[in-house]
Amino acid sequence: MTPTLGVGLIGYAFMGAAHSQAWRTAPHFFDLPLRPELTVLAGRDAVRVADAAERLGWTSTETDWRRVLERDDVSLVDVCTPGDTHAEIAIAALEAGKHVLCEKPLANTVAEAEAMADAAARAAARGVRSMVGFTYRRVPAIGLARQLVADGRLGEIRHVRAQYLQDWIADPTAPMSWRLDKDKAGSGALGDIGAHIVDLTQHITGQRLTGVSALLETFVEERPLPASAGSLSGVAGEGMGTVTVDDAAVFLGRFNGGALASFEATRFALGRKNAIRIEVNGSRGSLAFDFEDMNVLQFFDGDEPAATAGFRRILVTEPEHPYVGAWWPAGHGLGYEHGFTHQVVDLVTAIAKGEDPRPSFADGLQVQRVLDAVERSAAARSVWTDI
Amino acid sequence: MTPTLGVGLIGYAFMGAAHSQAWRTAPHFFDLPLRPELTVLAGRDAVRVADAAERLGWTSTETDWRRVLERDDVSLVDVCTPGDTHAEIAIAALEAGKHVLCEKPLANTVAEAEAMADAAARAAARGVRSMVGFTYRRVPAIGLARQLVADGRLGEIRHVRAQYLQDWIADPTAPMSWRLDKDKAGSGALGDIGAHIVDLTQHITGQRLTGVSALLETFVEERPLPASAGSLSGVAGEGMGTVTVDDAAVFLGRFNGGALASFEATRFALGRKNAIRIEVNGSRGSLAFDFEDMNVLQFFDGDEPAATAGFRRILVTEPEHPYVGAWWPAGHGLGYEHGFTHQVVDLVTAIAKGEDPRPSFADGLQVQRVLDAVERSAAARSVWTDI
Amino acid sequence: MTPTLGVGLIGYAFMGAAHSQAWRTAPHFFDLPLRPELTVLAGRDAVRVADAAERLGWTSTETDWRRVLERDDVSLVDVCTPGDTHAEIAIAALEAGKHVLCEKPLANTVAEAEAMADAAARAAARGVRSMVGFTYRRVPAIGLARQLVADGRLGEIRHVRAQYLQDWIADPTAPMSWRLDKDKAGSGALGDIGAHIVDLTQHITGQRLTGVSALLETFVEERPLPASAGSLSGVAGEGMGTVTVDDAAVFLGRFNGGALASFEATRFALGRKNAIRIEVNGSRGSLAFDFEDMNVLQFFDGDEPAATAGFRRILVTEPEHPYVGAWWPAGHGLGYEHGFTHQVVDLVTAIAKGEDPRPSFADGLQVQRVLDAVERSAAARSVWTDI
Amino acid sequence: MTPTLGVGLIGYAFMGAAHSQAWRTAPHFFDLPLRPELTVLAGRDAVRVADAAERLGWTSTETDWRRVLERDDVSLVDVCTPGDTHAEIAIAALEAGKHVLCEKPLANTVAEAEAMADAAARAAARGVRSMVGFTYRRVPAIGLARQLVADGRLGEIRHVRAQYLQDWIADPTAPMSWRLDKDKAGSGALGDIGAHIVDLTQHITGQRLTGVSALLETFVEERPLPASAGSLSGVAGEGMGTVTVDDAAVFLGRFNGGALASFEATRFALGRKNAIRIEVNGSRGSLAFDFEDMNVLQFFDGDEPAATAGFRRILVTEPEHPYVGAWWPAGHGLGYEHGFTHQVVDLVTAIAKGEDPRPSFADGLQVQRVLDAVERSAAARSVWTDI
Repeated sequence: MTPTLGVGLIGYAFMGAAHSQAWRTAPHFFDLPLRPELTVLAGRDAVRVADAAERLGWTSTETDWRRVLERDDVSLVDVCTPGDTHAEIAIAALEAGKHVLCEKPLANTVAEAEAMADAAARAAARGVRSMVGFTYRRVPAIGLARQLVADGRLGEIRHVRAQYLQDWIADPTAPMSWRLDKDKAGSGALGDIGAHIVDLTQHITGQRLTGVSALLETFVEERPLPASAGSLSGVAGEGMGTVTVDDAAVFLGRFNGGALASFEATRFALGRKNAIRIEVNGSRGSLAFDFEDMNVLQFFDGDEPAATAGFRRILVTEPEHPYVGAWWPAGHGLGYEHGFTHQVVDLVTAIAKGEDPRPSFADGLQVQRVLDAVERSAAARSVWTDI
Repeated sequence: MTPTLGVGLIGYAFMGAAHSQAWRTAPHFFDLPLRPELTVLAGRDAVRVADAAERLGWTSTETDWRRVLERDDVSLVDVCTPGDTHAEIAIAALEAGKHVLCEKPLANTVAEAEAMADAAARAAARGVRSMVGFTYRRVPAIGLARQLVADGRLGEIRHVRAQYLQDWIADPTAPMSWRLDKDKAGSGALGDIGAHIVDLTQHITGQRLTGVSALLETFVEERPLPASAGSLSGVAGEGMGTVTVDDAAVFLGRFNGGALASFEATRFALGRKNAIRIEVNGSRGSLAFDFEDMNVLQFFDGDEPAATAGFRRILVTEPEHPYVGAWWPAGHGLGYEHGFTHQVVDLVTAIAKGEDPRPSFADGLQVQRVLDAVERSAAARSVWTDI
Repeated sequence: MTPTLGVGLIGYAFMGAAHSQAWRTAPHFFDLPLRPELTVLAGRDAVRVADAAERLGWTSTETDWRRVLERDDVSLVDVCTPGDTHAEIAIAALEAGKHVLCEKPLANTVAEAEAMADAAARAAARGVRSMVGFTYRRVPAIGLARQLVADGRLGEIRHVRAQYLQDWIADPTAPMSWRLDKDKAGSGALGDIGAHIVDLTQHITGQRLTGVSALLETFVEERPLPASAGSLSGVAGEGMGTVTVDDAAVFLGRFNGGALASFEATRFALGRKNAIRIEVNGSRGSLAFDFEDMNVLQFFDGDEPAATAGFRRILVTEPEHPYVGAWWPAGHGLGYEHGFTHQVVDLVTAIAKGEDPRPSFADGLQVQRVLDAVERSAAARSVWTDI
Repeated sequence: MTPTLGVGLIGYAFMGAAHSQAWRTAPHFFDLPLRPELTVLAGRDAVRVADAAERLGWTSTETDWRRVLERDDVSLVDVCTPGDTHAEIAIAALEAGKHVLCEKPLANTVAEAEAMADAAARAAARGVRSMVGFTYRRVPAIGLARQLVADGRLGEIRHVRAQYLQDWIADPTAPMSWRLDKDKAGSGALGDIGAHIVDLTQHITGQRLTGVSALLETFVEERPLPASAGSLSGVAGEGMGTVTVDDAAVFLGRFNGGALASFEATRFALGRKNAIRIEVNGSRGSLAFDFEDMNVLQFFDGDEPAATAGFRRILVTEPEHPYVGAWWPAGHGLGYEHGFTHQVVDLVTAIAKGEDPRPSFADGLQVQRVLDAVERSAAARSVWTDI
C-alpha cells in the first residue's frame, strides 16, 4: 500500500488550477512512491475558496494559510500566491516542517529570496525539502535539450538567444491587474516570464550568467482600472491606474563558459501568445525550441557531413524521451499542463528518496540575482553589471 | 447539487486509459450538468482489472461486461474493447437502457454497424443516447476548421486531401499484435486510422463521400509472434505469425458537393509518428491541419488582396476557440488527451439536454460503409465503387 | 578558345524567356566545353519576335521555324512552343541534324511521342542529341533527393506522394487561354504540371510506374474569352469559351519496386501558387520536398536512434550539393530559373562528350504513357490501368 | 533607341561576380531607361582580371582603378573591393564625375564615411549620383515589409529583433582570410553582416537607432594561415595568424520612435548559413522574415478577429509584389542574386530621372555611426552610447 502525502495548496487562480490538475493526475500515469492527497486549499474568501475546492478537487479549505501549516494531515505546502507573499509563507512552512513547492519567481526581492534560500538550507538539514516551480524545465523537449548538452553533443557553447514573447497587454486599453503592480508582482515581464528564460537557459547549458547589460521599458503607463478590484475578468471599469512594472525587458549576458547571450521578455509582441524561444549554438551542434510548438526540439548535429546536415525536427513524443513513456503512444503530443505533472513526479520522488529536488530555492535565488542585476543595469545606462 | 452519472468502462488498454483521464478531468475544467462517477471498470482478468482500476481511478471492477449492464449505479457504458466485440456489447447496453460511448471504428463489418445503428435508433426513441468516439473532431483546431467551412469562409469545396501517417510497424521485425489480426481488428491501417480521416473530412466539409477507388497493401506479411500472447510489450517472442490486415490504404474519392479527394492511411511512413494531415481547398479559402502541430490551423483567406494573402498559422489557443476557454490562458497549448475530455463534455451535455450527440452510430455506420467500399474497390482492380 | 554552339529558340513566351536566361547565364558560372551563342529566335509575328529577340538577347530572328533548321550557324534547336507543335518541329530538327531540347510534355499524344522517341533514337545513332525539359530535376534539392535514394539511404521505397498545386484559375472569371484548349495543350493540369511530378518521382526513386487509377475533373466548364485572341494579359474580353481540358487530376499508382503512390495535379488549390510537393517513405529513410521552399530538402534518417531522430531541414545551398558550388557561398539560395541553367549545363556537357543526355525523349514518351493511362482510367470508372 | 550607361567595375571576387550578373541580367527583365554596358573590369593582377572579365562578361580590363576613372566610356563606377579602399576610390570617382555604386559597409571608419558622404553631397549638386550596396533592401519580401510599415499596418513600432547568423568560421581550423583582418575589413561580423541588419531594420521601420549597448567577442583568436596569401580556397597552409576582428557582436538599441531593439551578428551560429532574421512588433501588426526562406514574409494583422488571427506566410511571388512582376509567374521564387539586379534597376532609373537613389552615402554613414557606437559601447563595459 503506497503511503500518502497530504498537500495543502495556497492560492487557486491560474497557477492553483494548474498545480491542482498536476496533483490529481500524476498518480494515474506515474508510479509514485507517495500518493498525493489534495487535503486542503487555502484562500482568504471563504465562499470563493469553497467553490474553488469543489471545482479543483480539494477535500477541505482554510481561509488563513497559517492554519494549513498547523495541520497534521498536511506534509507539503504548495505556494501559488503572488510573489510578495512567497517569502513569508514558504519560510513559515519550512519552519513548520512542511516540504514546500513555491511558484516562481521565488520572491520579489533578492533579500527575500536569500531569506528563503537560508530557510531551505536549514530545513534540508532536517530532511524537509523545497523546490521552486520553474515548470518549463519539465517539458520533454527541454529535458532532451538538457540531455544533449550534458552528453556533449553541442560542444562548447558560444551563443544563447532566448525570448519569451506574449501580447496580452499590447492593447493599451487592456485593464490593470495585480501583475502590473510592482508591490504585488515585484516586476513585470522581467520576473513573470523573463525569469523562466533565465532559468531555462542556465538549466539547458548547465552554466550560470555572470553579468548583464539591460534595458527595461513601460510602453503604456496608465491603464483603465478593472471592473472590480478582485476581478480576473479582464474587463475595464472606471478610472485609470498606473502601471508600475516593466512591459518589456531586453538584456545581453555572458555565461561562465564564455557564451554570449541575448534575452527578451515582453508582453507586447503582437501575435505571439506564449512563445518561449530558445536557441543554443555550440562548437559541435545547435538547438532551437519554441513553446508554440512545444513537442518539438530542433537539433543540428555538426558532426554530420555537410551534404546531409540540417536542423532536425525531433518530435519529442517517443518513449525514449524524458517523461513521455508514461503517457501515450509515439506521436501523441502533450500540452502545457503536463510540465506541472512532471514537476509533481520529480518532487514526490525526491521527497521519498530523501533527496533535495531541483530547481532548489538556491537556484531560485540565483535567478533573482540575475533579475536584480538586470534592473540595476537598466537603471545605470545599461552598464555591464556583474551577478 | 449536480446530479451524478455512473459510468462503466469496458476495456483498459490505450483507449481505456485515455477515456479514464477524460472522465476524471472533465468536471474540473467544465461546468457539467451531470457529474460523472468512475463507477466500474470491466475486464476479463480479475487481477489485471483490479490493478487497472486502482491506477485509472475506478471505484469497482467486474470481470464480465454483462454485469456492468445489470448495475443500477451505471447509466452509461463506455466501450473501449477491440472492434470485434463492439456490436455485442453496445447493443446489449443500449437494450439495457444504458447510454453508450463506443470507440471507433463502430464495428468490424457493415452488418454489425447496421445492427448497432438500428439499436441506437430504437434506444434514442426511449431517450437512451449513443455516440461513437471519433475524438479528433474535438481537437480545437478541427472545431475551428468545421466552423470556418460552416460559415462559408471556404466557399465551394473543390479539393480534400487527407493522410494519416504512422510508422510503428515500418520495421519488419516489429512483432504481431491484435491490431494486425483481421479477426480482432477487422482491418489494418484502413479501419484503425483511415476511419479517422474519413470521419474528419466529412465532418469538416459537412459533406459525404459518394464513391471511392482504392488500393490496399500489406508490405510485411509475416511477423514474429510477441513474447507472450497478451503482451503489450512490443517484444518479439518465438515463431512467426501472419499479418491478415492491410499495412496501408490509399484511395481517391468524391464528395457529394463535387470535391475531389485523396486519402492515405499507413503505418509505414517512416518518420511520421501520428501525422493526421488534412487540407481543404475551396473557391473562397483553404485550410491545412497537421496533428503533429495540433494546436495550429492554417487558413488561407481568398478574400485578402493578393499582396497580403497567405496561409495564416492560427494558434488555436485563444478563449474564442472551441473548448479552449475552459483551460489555460492564450498560447498555452493542449495535448492529445484533451480531445477525449471534450468528448465527455459534449456527450454529458447532450444526455442532460435530452439531445442525440454526434457523431452518432449512424455516422459511424456511414464511415463503415466507406471503409467497406474501399475494400471492395481494392479487390476489384480499383474500380469506382459507390457508397 | 572554347568552341561555340549556335542555338535557335522557337517560341518566346514564359518558357522562351526562361530558356533565354539559361543560355545567357550558364557560361558565366559554369566551365562549359561549348560556349552557347544565342543565334536566332523564331516566332510567327515579325514585330513581336524582333521585340522579344531584343529583350531576350538573341542576335537574329526568323518568322518560320523551318528557316532555323536550314541555318548552318545553328547546331541546337530549343523547342518552347505549345505541345501540339512539338512533334513536327523536333522531328524535323533532328532529321536536319540539329540537337534538340524540347519542352515538356514531350507531345500531346502517345503516338506523337513515339514518333519523337523513334526520331531521337535514329538521330542518336548519328551523334545528334535530344533532351526533354523536365527542368525541375535540376533543382539542387531534387538532385540531392535522387542521390540519397541512389545511395540506399531510403532503403526499399514504400510510399510516394506527390502534388503539384496551383490556383491561377481557381477564380471562375479567369479568362480562357491556350492552356485550357485541348487542341493546343493536349490536356490541362495533367500534362502541364502532372507530367512534372510523374517525371520527378520516377527520377528520384529510379523506378517506373506500372499502373494507375484516376479521376479527372473540370470544375469550371465555361470561361470568358480573353480581351484579344493572342493576349497573355489575363484580362477577360467578351463572350464565353469552353474549357476542354481537365482542371485537376488525382490518381493512385504503383511503382515497379512495389511502392504505393498517390498523385494530384490541380490549378484550383487556392493559396498554393507553385507547390510541387513530393514525399517518399522507405524502409531506411524518408524525404520531403516542397518547391515553395525550393532550397530545402527534408530527410529523415531511420538509422538515427529514436531519441534524436527527426526530419532534417537540409538547406541545399552548400558547395557539396549538386550544381551549388558554381554559384554563391553557402546559404545564398537559388531561384526558379536556376534549374534551366543547370539543364543547359548538362545538355551542353553531354553534347560535347558525345553522350545522350537525360531525360531523353524515351523518358518523355514513358511519362506520356503514364498520362495516357491516367486519362484512360478516368474514362473507365477509375479502373486499374497498366502502363 | 535606349541610351547606354558605361559601367566600370572595381573588384571581381564574390561581390564582383554578383554585381556582374546583375548588370548583365537587369535589361533582359526590366525596361531600363539606360542600357548598362559592361565596359571595363579593374583588378591589380593582369592575368587574373582578364580571366575574370572573360568569365563575367566585361569587354575590357584595367590593372589600375584610376584608369577606369579617366575613361570617357565609363559613366558609373561600381566599387566591390575590401572596405579599406572604398573611400579613396569612391571619392575619386565622384570627383571625376562618375556615378558610384559602393559595396557596404560604406567604409571602415566613420571618418572615411564622412568624407565619402561629403563627396557624395558635392557630387549630387553636380548631378552625379551615388548609392551604397545594401542590396537586401531589394529582396521583394523586404520591400513588402517596408510597404506594410509605411502603410501603417504595424501601427506604432514597439519591438525590433534582428539576427544575421552564419557559421563559416565556427570551426576553429578554418583558415585566416582578409575578412578576419581589421586593417582590410575594418571589423568582423559587425561590419560585414551586422551592417546589413542595422540598415534593414532602419529601412523597414523608417526610423533611426538613437543609441546602443553592446558586446563583441572573438571566440577563436589564432587561425591557420591560408595555403597561399591571395587564396580564396579556404584551405589552410602553414603557420598561424591572429584574428583582429570580432567573431560576433550582440547589441541592444532603441529606435527614435521608442521601440526596443536587439541585434546579433555572428559567424559562429552552427547550422545557420545565411540567416537574416528580422522581426518587428507594432501596436497593430507584426512582421517576421528569414532569408533562409527568402521568398516569404510573415505578417500578423492585429485587426483580424482573435479566432482567425495568425501569422500569414505570404509567398512574396505575386505580380503585386515589389519587382516580382518582371520575372516569372506567381509562385516561382527568386534567389539571392535577384536583389542585385533590382539594385541595378533602381540605380539606373534614379540616374535617368536625375534623382538621388537610396540608400545614399549619407545612409551608409549613419550605419557606420551605429557600428562605431557599438564598438565604443563594447569597449566601455556596454554602457549606453548615443548615436
